[in-house]
Amino acid sequence: MSEFESDLEGQSYLIRDIVARVLAEDIGPGDATSRAVIPPETRAAGQLLAKESGVVAGMEVARECFQQLSSQTEFAAVKHSGEHFEVGEVLATVQGPARALLAAERTALNFLQRLCGIATLTRKFVDAVAGTGVEIADTRKTTPGIRSLDRAAVRAGGGKNHRTALYDGILIKDNHIRLVGSVSAAVQAARSKAHSLFKVEIETTNLDQVREALAASADIIMLDNMSLEMMGKAVKIIGDRALIEASGGIELDEVAEVAAIGVDIISVGTLTHSAPSLDISLELSPIE
Amino acid sequence: MSEFESDLEGQSYLIRDIVARVLAEDIGPGDATSRAVIPPETRAAGQLLAKESGVVAGMEVARECFQQLSSQTEFAAVKHSGEHFEVGEVLATVQGPARALLAAERTALNFLQRLCGIATLTRKFVDAVAGTGVEIADTRKTTPGIRSLDRAAVRAGGGKNHRTALYDGILIKDNHIRLVGSVSAAVQAARSKAHSLFKVEIETTNLDQVREALAASADIIMLDNMSLEMMGKAVKIIGDRALIEASGGIELDEVAEVAAIGVDIISVGTLTHSAPSLDISLELSPIE
Amino acid sequence: MSEFESDLEGQSYLIRDIVARVLAEDIGPGDATSRAVIPPETRAAGQLLAKESGVVAGMEVARECFQQLSSQTEFAAVKHSGEHFEVGEVLATVQGPARALLAAERTALNFLQRLCGIATLTRKFVDAVAGTGVEIADTRKTTPGIRSLDRAAVRAGGGKNHRTALYDGILIKDNHIRLVGSVSAAVQAARSKAHSLFKVEIETTNLDQVREALAASADIIMLDNMSLEMMGKAVKIIGDRALIEASGGIELDEVAEVAAIGVDIISVGTLTHSAPSLDISLELSPIE
Amino acid sequence: MSEFESDLEGQSYLIRDIVARVLAEDIGPGDATSRAVIPPETRAAGQLLAKESGVVAGMEVARECFQQLSSQTEFAAVKHSGEHFEVGEVLATVQGPARALLAAERTALNFLQRLCGIATLTRKFVDAVAGTGVEIADTRKTTPGIRSLDRAAVRAGGGKNHRTALYDGILIKDNHIRLVGSVSAAVQAARSKAHSLFKVEIETTNLDQVREALAASADIIMLDNMSLEMMGKAVKIIGDRALIEASGGIELDEVAEVAAIGVDIISVGTLTHSAPSLDISLELSPIE
Amino acid sequence: MSEFESDLEGQSYLIRDIVARVLAEDIGPGDATSRAVIPPETRAAGQLLAKESGVVAGMEVARECFQQLSSQTEFAAVKHSGEHFEVGEVLATVQGPARALLAAERTALNFLQRLCGIATLTRKFVDAVAGTGVEIADTRKTTPGIRSLDRAAVRAGGGKNHRTALYDGILIKDNHIRLVGSVSAAVQAARSKAHSLFKVEIETTNLDQVREALAASADIIMLDNMSLEMMGKAVKIIGDRALIEASGGIELDEVAEVAAIGVDIISVGTLTHSAPSLDISLELSPIE
Amino acid sequence: MSEFESDLEGQSYLIRDIVARVLAEDIGPGDATSRAVIPPETRAAGQLLAKESGVVAGMEVARECFQQLSSQTEFAAVKHSGEHFEVGEVLATVQGPARALLAAERTALNFLQRLCGIATLTRKFVDAVAGTGVEIADTRKTTPGIRSLDRAAVRAGGGKNHRTALYDGILIKDNHIRLVGSVSAAVQAARSKAHSLFKVEIETTNLDQVREALAASADIIMLDNMSLEMMGKAVKIIGDRALIEASGGIELDEVAEVAAIGVDIISVGTLTHSAPSLDISLELSPIE
Repeated sequence: MSEFESDLEGQSYLIRDIVARVLAEDIGPGDATSRAVIPPETRAAGQLLAKESGVVAGMEVARECFQQLSSQTEFAAVKHSGEHFEVGEVLATVQGPARALLAAERTALNFLQRLCGIATLTRKFVDAVAGTGVEIADTRKTTPGIRSLDRAAVRAGGGKNHRTALYDGILIKDNHIRLVGSVSAAVQAARSKAHSLFKVEIETTNLDQVREALAASADIIMLDNMSLEMMGKAVKIIGDRALIEASGGIELDEVAEVAAIGVDIISVGTLTHSAPSLDISLELSPIE
Repeated sequence: MSEFESDLEGQSYLIRDIVARVLAEDIGPGDATSRAVIPPETRAAGQLLAKESGVVAGMEVARECFQQLSSQTEFAAVKHSGEHFEVGEVLATVQGPARALLAAERTALNFLQRLCGIATLTRKFVDAVAGTGVEIADTRKTTPGIRSLDRAAVRAGGGKNHRTALYDGILIKDNHIRLVGSVSAAVQAARSKAHSLFKVEIETTNLDQVREALAASADIIMLDNMSLEMMGKAVKIIGDRALIEASGGIELDEVAEVAAIGVDIISVGTLTHSAPSLDISLELSPIE
Repeated sequence: MSEFESDLEGQSYLIRDIVARVLAEDIGPGDATSRAVIPPETRAAGQLLAKESGVVAGMEVARECFQQLSSQTEFAAVKHSGEHFEVGEVLATVQGPARALLAAERTALNFLQRLCGIATLTRKFVDAVAGTGVEIADTRKTTPGIRSLDRAAVRAGGGKNHRTALYDGILIKDNHIRLVGSVSAAVQAARSKAHSLFKVEIETTNLDQVREALAASADIIMLDNMSLEMMGKAVKIIGDRALIEASGGIELDEVAEVAAIGVDIISVGTLTHSAPSLDISLELSPIE
Repeated sequence: MSEFESDLEGQSYLIRDIVARVLAEDIGPGDATSRAVIPPETRAAGQLLAKESGVVAGMEVARECFQQLSSQTEFAAVKHSGEHFEVGEVLATVQGPARALLAAERTALNFLQRLCGIATLTRKFVDAVAGTGVEIADTRKTTPGIRSLDRAAVRAGGGKNHRTALYDGILIKDNHIRLVGSVSAAVQAARSKAHSLFKVEIETTNLDQVREALAASADIIMLDNMSLEMMGKAVKIIGDRALIEASGGIELDEVAEVAAIGVDIISVGTLTHSAPSLDISLELSPIE
Repeated sequence: MSEFESDLEGQSYLIRDIVARVLAEDIGPGDATSRAVIPPETRAAGQLLAKESGVVAGMEVARECFQQLSSQTEFAAVKHSGEHFEVGEVLATVQGPARALLAAERTALNFLQRLCGIATLTRKFVDAVAGTGVEIADTRKTTPGIRSLDRAAVRAGGGKNHRTALYDGILIKDNHIRLVGSVSAAVQAARSKAHSLFKVEIETTNLDQVREALAASADIIMLDNMSLEMMGKAVKIIGDRALIEASGGIELDEVAEVAAIGVDIISVGTLTHSAPSLDISLELSPIE
Repeated sequence: MSEFESDLEGQSYLIRDIVARVLAEDIGPGDATSRAVIPPETRAAGQLLAKESGVVAGMEVARECFQQLSSQTEFAAVKHSGEHFEVGEVLATVQGPARALLAAERTALNFLQRLCGIATLTRKFVDAVAGTGVEIADTRKTTPGIRSLDRAAVRAGGGKNHRTALYDGILIKDNHIRLVGSVSAAVQAARSKAHSLFKVEIETTNLDQVREALAASADIIMLDNMSLEMMGKAVKIIGDRALIEASGGIELDEVAEVAAIGVDIISVGTLTHSAPSLDISLELSPIE
């Protein structure tokens, strides 16, 4: 078994830093209750238990929370990144010094519940377009400060990551077009000034913009907040001359229809900005 | 108008640090698109516009996002912390160097949409128990790394903050009780070992535990995941000998019933762990 | 033997960060003398020796200083947190690479001497009120930047910690009262606005304030800088309707008298702001 | 009036970082009492008042504490670094948002009381040797984490700083000598391996070592823990062939005698490790 | 004049952090010489003077060095990013508190000399291929820790930036090919797993690899360490079916020949890893 | 074999922090290429191979780069600090998870190539003055942010370090003299105000200044940018009354001549500001 359950390996320092910061947020100068109530030598064991069904993500973050507080804590994942689980299933087991387990509990669960929530919602979108070859992608509408974790959760759910941030991709949006004057001026500037390893994607909101983007040889054309009908026309206009991405508040119950139109990618902000948290509990018992 | 719109004054350094970290997450070594497409001297102005109705929170965080990237950016809040807004209302206006506005946009909106989402959901819970004198409180199930902001959003929505973290209150939970053996042993340890400024709250899941907590003179008794019927009996048993807090997955459509039973506080994790993001947009236009 | 000698377990990251920062303060880009004088392969062993009698605190901090500089350094505590030692006793032994020991020496001793000094002075106050049931508590008048360590030293000396900081307790002081207008207005505001897990303590300087505090149902009443006589009257007025804390420059030679009056807690700033450092030395000898 | 009252100018970033860290230690997520009791719009003014006589140090640190929490706070020093003050004198005045003043108060006073304590004790030592030309110097036995402030306080008291840390001076101590075998081997190694801008100082504990140090052409010879009689002999042996420093637990009541022997420098650890804190108060009143 | 002379605007926080760290490296607890020799009230003025001809870069970094140490320092750039200067020309003037100027001097010059060195060497390469339409690009062989500054200097010299780092572009190198088995397997994996906004570039060292890369539809083909002759053949094979980048130790005296072959981009590690520093001096004189 | 190959032991935390920061600069949120192309379970092995001859420095930094990314990576140095190597020699071997090796490769090589470059150039200067007893020293003209590593590389090349920074030595330069009025005023101030462990060095540019420096009893006299002839006269004037340092753009082909004049130290900025990077490669192959 490798150090990390998900595909975040090589990023252990990133998880370590985030977890250290968030543990400090909850523990600060110490856990007043456990310090008063639990003797320092008490040891405990417990299970992370699913109270709802879903998809695993963030297991390596939960592990880090528990292990960062005590080198004596053992954490064993039972379910791994991307696996489905049912209500009542054990996701992981943990044992170690009781004070350390109690201090890590809430932080570990906050991460795990949020990240499983994202993976689970992503899986629903992915399942809804199954067989169409359309990719479900995330956006930059992520939880402030833990984008890397949100993105790994999207991958765990079967989604694909869009660009990470402003620095690793060219995406010309409505504001850019308004500020620079036209679709073609924007695409041309991007081509000549950005480094050569970037494709150029542009957001369009009507068919004229779609045609202008095509004329400017944009690599990827985003159809933003269009009706199904307008998207259909856009897809016909574009053909295979550019990759097509649909975006803009697309809900779970309409995603299959959008996929059927023939777009390549559907990007969904709600995966990360509004996925409900999944209920997971930790019950501890004393051990020798 | 003071520096901050909410009651976070005196915490400006905290907002500054969080915003700096999250801006770095999205901008890193630079905004590839704007650097290529927008000339450095372009200036722009725009409005933060509500696409859904709700309650304001996080305005001071959005302000900080925009101003941290350029000292030339002007941000004017139109709606302030705790105020209600309708679809189509302008929440704030912003103007300054276009590149700086574009680089801050997503981070500012991510914060604002999330925090307004929390304030809006909190307001719904608060309205549902209006007139009962019952307080709606948050929990520690907050967004990892930005708990202070989540808590301010709860206050903006009319909710009351529970303890901040493990360090500023005694709350004996089921795991503590199992590990230490009994409700009374736990309450007694808390009394004698914690500092004198803390009350002692204990979580109970059945009426025997409620009685034992009362016998041990707990200051606050939490009724956790009880049925309405059991809560009713617990409230009668306790009377005014302790403060009563109801907790455990209480939904918006049942909160009024819970309040009617006679508890003092209802704490609701969903306020911060699952509030849907509110849709807010920023449209920029070039200015001289 | 657990990782830490004192009750700071679960806080190892805090000690690690403080020690790293303070070692950097003394070592910076390197120990000029040892680098010039001591060959890199030289190994040494030595003893931390008490030059005065006292009470142990901070042993885990000294350990961290030595071990952080070299994974090859072995540190063995002979005396543990809270134990008394006489002049000439060995407190701990250390061995490892000589340069690492020499670089850590002053920092380790600065911590240990200061923290043992606090524990030792605390023990004198605690002994002076032995048998009365009165608690000796610390204040927020701690060494800037290492409050957690000062507080652990107070516990090692048998004292009890007061609130940690501004965030984990309500203590209404003279300045608050002057600014808000009255004792009762202040207590009432605290009750309604702070979270429910806090008791309310108020500082009083005369008997009128004591009576007003009682009327406002303050949980704890601090008698600040009162004469013995006034304290006696205050204790009679309060009876068991509130916890009573005496404070304000109480010296070691008068603490027994204050305790005899019938207060519950005596808080003593001098424990942490003026405890003299205890003399401890480290003598190193070369080993194979 | 320059930005800083003491000779710490050019080090403002250092003070800013220390103060930020220590304010965070005391305020964390917020001042629970003031947030509950004091309305956000309340403004206040007050005086930093001496309850004991002494010498000013750390005024620029106190200023930074107050100003870092609110840009609206005005701080005016009345007494400046190195000046003497009597009981009852006003050291500084402050006004601004009441919550910000209250949140900064304890941290500002903790710094100021500690640093004035160091300056005051240093002045006593300096006065005791007045007219002899002997310098009173500090040691590395400073408060962990704020050595720069301790050293500035020593200067404010009229003392002279010894080396800052391990990196800016060669001082061969008893442990070095034992590990390397002899005084002359140590001095010779220091000469050849350290950079040329360093003099070489060596600690001696008997007259044989003094003679050996002289023979090895040490630039400065420290007489460590010697009796007055032995120091007298050492001074005669050395003459003006090296600078002479006396060290080792020299008390205020014996420092004049040591100075009279003819040493050049007397270094005193107690200046920074055991100077009692000076009592200074802040009384606030509401203003318009 | 905008805040920054180069195109680093919107990155001021990045420059601020780098400069703070590097100033700390040189100043630490203080400038021993100036503190001893220069009275605190002395003010000075001076000029940054070119001792060699070259191209400006890093002026905004030098400015930050001087201004970060004192808010009273005025810095006026005379030459701006990308401008050529001759021996003896004034690049900038500075005035302010003498101690602050002296403390910043070396750090400011270290940055400026290094960055002007990079811009100057870049300009030579750019001039050598003038008129061919070939772009001179940098590599990831930059100064550890200040890559953003190195890259801005390359832009100032007329070069174009390649990808910033491992995270913002796909470049399959020899090691990847060896590890994954073939050029086509690598290109195919990159296409399907990386996000859609990335083109795929692959490094080739012989004509078979070039053909295989073409067959796999790589967007950009790097000719690595090929002879002029082999590059010529590769260019003919590729035609306009992919962008062509030449790389691998290409020297200034051969770059024109490489450009003439018909490649699109020439990337040159030596721009940043071995550009000699440019000699620039600062002479200060006292002012009123 | 000790933890570190060079004399940086006791400084492991410094290397760790620098490496962490620089790895983050290159890897950020992840290596896009390897994540797409290389399966997570692939393991690889390879050799760091010299493409040019030179002198080893920075091996412990390269080791840290590889090991920080994965605890499963093994790094074995074949050549150690200060050793000479020829073209084609293996400097070190490495094996571990392929993704971790690829992510560390560029950062490790950037450090190693730069530091070996410095050691190699230093060795050339040292060899050029071999037998004269003259020391080749570095200056403060180092790579911003990694001065400690540059200085270790100079030691590896046989050079001697000058003062580290502004804080650990007194060096009065031309600007100081102009600002304070005269050589003798400056030397006198340094003597009386700096701590006693510092010698006083002063920079002179003509023979009058040399004579004035001697009269003021400077410990070390720097001959800055003088002609060989003037240096010869200065050396005669000074004799053995002060240490003599030559400085100011001294090139490799003239250093022997300068040494022959009879100076004690020659300091050479070019060692660290303009040493060309040494070419070193890493070839990886898959392993089981």
